[in-house]
Amino acid sequence: MLSLKYIAINSFNENVVYLHKDCDAYKVDDTNSIVKMEIHGGASPLFAFLEIVDDENIVAADELGLNKSAFEMLNLPEGAKVTVSLANPPQSIAYIKRKMEGNILSSSEYSGIIKDIATKRYSNMDITSFLVATGSFITPQEVSSMTEALVDGNTLTWDNESIVVDHHCLGGVPGNKTDIIITAIVAAYGLPIPKTSARSLTSCAGVADTFSVLANVNFDDIKLKQLIKENRGAIVDYTSLPTTTTCKIISSVERSLGIIKHEHIISSILAIKLAAGVTHLVIDIPVGPTARIKSTKEALRLRKIIEHVSDLLLIETDVVITDGSEPIGNGVGAVLEARDIMKILRNKEDAPQDLREKSLFLAGRVLEFDPKLRGGQGYRVAKEILTSGRALEALNRIIYAQGKTSQAQLGHLTRDIVANKSGVIEAIDNYRINEIGVLAGAAQHHGAGIDLLKKVGDRVERGDVLYRIHSLNSNDFAFANSAVNNNNGYEISSRR
Amino acid sequence: MLSLKYIAINSFNENVVYLHKDCDAYKVDDTNSIVKMEIHGGASPLFAFLEIVDDENIVAADELGLNKSAFEMLNLPEGAKVTVSLANPPQSIAYIKRKMEGNILSSSEYSGIIKDIATKRYSNMDITSFLVATGSFITPQEVSSMTEALVDGNTLTWDNESIVVDHHCLGGVPGNKTDIIITAIVAAYGLPIPKTSARSLTSCAGVADTFSVLANVNFDDIKLKQLIKENRGAIVDYTSLPTTTTCKIISSVERSLGIIKHEHIISSILAIKLAAGVTHLVIDIPVGPTARIKSTKEALRLRKIIEHVSDLLLIETDVVITDGSEPIGNGVGAVLEARDIMKILRNKEDAPQDLREKSLFLAGRVLEFDPKLRGGQGYRVAKEILTSGRALEALNRIIYAQGKTSQAQLGHLTRDIVANKSGVIEAIDNYRINEIGVLAGAAQHHGAGIDLLKKVGDRVERGDVLYRIHSLNSNDFAFANSAVNNNNGYEISSRR
Repeated sequence: MLSLKYIAINSFNENVVYLHKDCDAYKVDDTNSIVKMEIHGGASPLFAFLEIVDDENIVAADELGLNKSAFEMLNLPEGAKVTVSLANPPQSIAYIKRKMEGNILSSSEYSGIIKDIATKRYSNMDITSFLVATGSFITPQEVSSMTEALVDGNTLTWDNESIVVDHHCLGGVPGNKTDIIITAIVAAYGLPIPKTSARSLTSCAGVADTFSVLANVNFDDIKLKQLIKENRGAIVDYTSLPTTTTCKIISSVERSLGIIKHEHIISSILAIKLAAGVTHLVIDIPVGPTARIKSTKEALRLRKIIEHVSDLLLIETDVVITDGSEPIGNGVGAVLEARDIMKILRNKEDAPQDLREKSLFLAGRVLEFDPKLRGGQGYRVAKEILTSGRALEALNRIIYAQGKTSQAQLGHLTRDIVANKSGVIEAIDNYRINEIGVLAGAAQHHGAGIDLLKKVGDRVERGDVLYRIHSLNSNDFAFANSAVNNNNGYEISSRR
Repeated sequence: MLSLKYIAINSFNENVVYLHKDCDAYKVDDTNSIVKMEIHGGASPLFAFLEIVDDENIVAADELGLNKSAFEMLNLPEGAKVTVSLANPPQSIAYIKRKMEGNILSSSEYSGIIKDIATKRYSNMDITSFLVATGSFITPQEVSSMTEALVDGNTLTWDNESIVVDHHCLGGVPGNKTDIIITAIVAAYGLPIPKTSARSLTSCAGVADTFSVLANVNFDDIKLKQLIKENRGAIVDYTSLPTTTTCKIISSVERSLGIIKHEHIISSILAIKLAAGVTHLVIDIPVGPTARIKSTKEALRLRKIIEHVSDLLLIETDVVITDGSEPIGNGVGAVLEARDIMKILRNKEDAPQDLREKSLFLAGRVLEFDPKLRGGQGYRVAKEILTSGRALEALNRIIYAQGKTSQAQLGHLTRDIVANKSGVIEAIDNYRINEIGVLAGAAQHHGAGIDLLKKVGDRVERGDVLYRIHSLNSNDFAFANSAVNNNNGYEISSRR
């Protein structure tokens, strides 16, 4: 029997158990092996990785320490008596071996794996092996099984709503925050749109990052229902909904790995939409040589998977393949993107027209889910709602209802990147611009990012500013600068 | 600038950096994401995972804590001034993505990945994605590239020795510790045999575990050379050789995952033998329905890979496919196996004959690497060395030179498993026996294990003891007992 102690360490989604090297109750073997333990004493056994401590101030020989997540899961007070033993590997690890050998897994195998992830029987390493094994080869039927397992019947229900809409983008193009504009237009029109959004995974900013510059994005399902009832639209960080915990655990591992397979993105998006009770969905797949999806062929393949899975899961999905050849809008990074969005909603003359047009086009597709709207009228209606100022009013109501945030400051460390010759902008490398923005700190700090002053087709004179980098600290700024010096992501031709 | 602090926590092969949640120098983002950091101030940047601390006794706002492995790698005193920034993902992660997409990786890509593992740029998650991606599909040429990268030109050299021999088994059959007997015979004959061995990965005991019951197995390359010079034979835990650090890091992840691909075992064995400067090698592949390698077809496939890779790496390898249909010897677990070995070397009447015969057969194959020995004479010479007592003398010299250990105690908690009917033992399930032994604590404690009193073909009466379980603690003992009640691994037919 050991005495439970809270160790105030956040190891993110890994449970850790700390034992003293001379632990009274368990002979720890100080070799170089990673050991998973089972802690007994709570309502159900808790799984955690063993770390060995040689400092009685952290944990003593008669104590068992648990880090933040493990302590919260065990849900016992400090000083409670607990026991510890070696954990058996979860049974579902055998399914991963089967997947590695090239087999198609059954729906019950996916549900076994996802259940073990949800109950923390999997370490981050185990989750990695699941993601890599299923990332090499997975059938549409398997994507569907995985998606259903992620939701596990746990979905929001919307009384008195026959249609609940949403829009999501597969990502990979900097800027491109159509979602917030679409939500404003659709809410103003009157269709319910509980827009679930995410923080950045590999980009400079996720929709949740950008909207959090304007309003709170963290609230639970009860509050979400109330917001939709009042305003028809809301933009929520999906991780704050209780139905999406397993998606959150998996995406945290994906973010750390930097390896995200298209099929996993699809599964995760559809699982989150299912969990939010969405019935009608527009999915945007931007295609471009430097975007995440590089060819129309690949986009078509993904469209078919999305259609296959949506049909099985009974979501009506309209998949739209769009131009992802360069960044959309001028701002890249949360604060700059929020600025672009507000310019568009305010019908400002200097608002980025590409982002405006794309938002109207996609909002039109969402609006056409309404059976009362005549086919082909979506775009026109969306445009009328935007130009009349009704979209701005709707967004202001949403911001007010969700709780306005104090505006994050734009990074004060700036550098102007200039054209090294006169000519026409031939290409902007999405991947490179995103990389420079991430180095500048955008994924961590909302005020960091890149302001694109020239886009493809613009004529420039030598010395004209192409874009401006914003950073909040000198470390990030130095990283971004050294990356730019190597390759600034712009291609200028000499034609005039 | 932060002040370096040593945090006495062993997180095994993961580097961890601890920052206070209100850290002075870096704004930590307490979201659910796993973040890799770079610490500057030492000879080269150190990579470590961020964990956030909310306890000034562990780490204060102006301090940067490092766990055991990270602190040792950075090699700076406590109080040294260091800086910290977000780490870029290592370039070689892109090769893993390529592998996941089904590509064949080049030799330089393998060397890039292995170098990043060796310098700790890879987290355990990253190593997992490498193992799973290469575990799904890998060519013999790639196994060879991986093996060469693991060794990286870093091999022991043996002056004045034209032949340096060794033997290794692909594993998967309980008991089966031929290696120690073979080493004794070969050393007595006079061929140099620096037997590199491992601790248990998924079995009840590795060769290093079993021999550590008799003698020390941890010594460096200089001591190994001296031992071989004096006695011609030595048995060393490979992880104590400086040339095998990366193999050790990888096998620690494999052990935790519980997923080990045959190609990775082959690569790791050949890398360790190459690093030890072995020129001639016998590899034993036991085949049986409940062994690791289940069919002769799979054994032949692996033999061809081993031959292909050995030829490329210039090791002369003799691959032997043997019977792995039931456990070899009586003891399973380090103490019991050491007992069997000593009985055989002492020519005791109750020594297990299957283990004796198999050891003589394999020792004969090793001896035949000697050009001076007439073809077909190996077995006869091996038998003569064993029965004359010269093998025992050689092993006693080796034990004395390596340093005799105080014998570990056999587990005092015992249970006899008895036949539930009379008849003949038809089959013993290797996998099940190993599992029961591991549950009984054998992988952790040398004195735990299973003593097999009946083998396949033996006649038994109802109530006869089939085997005896030994445990050192009640937890393990309870686990093993409940497993046995479900399925004891023995099949008895009614024929008499």
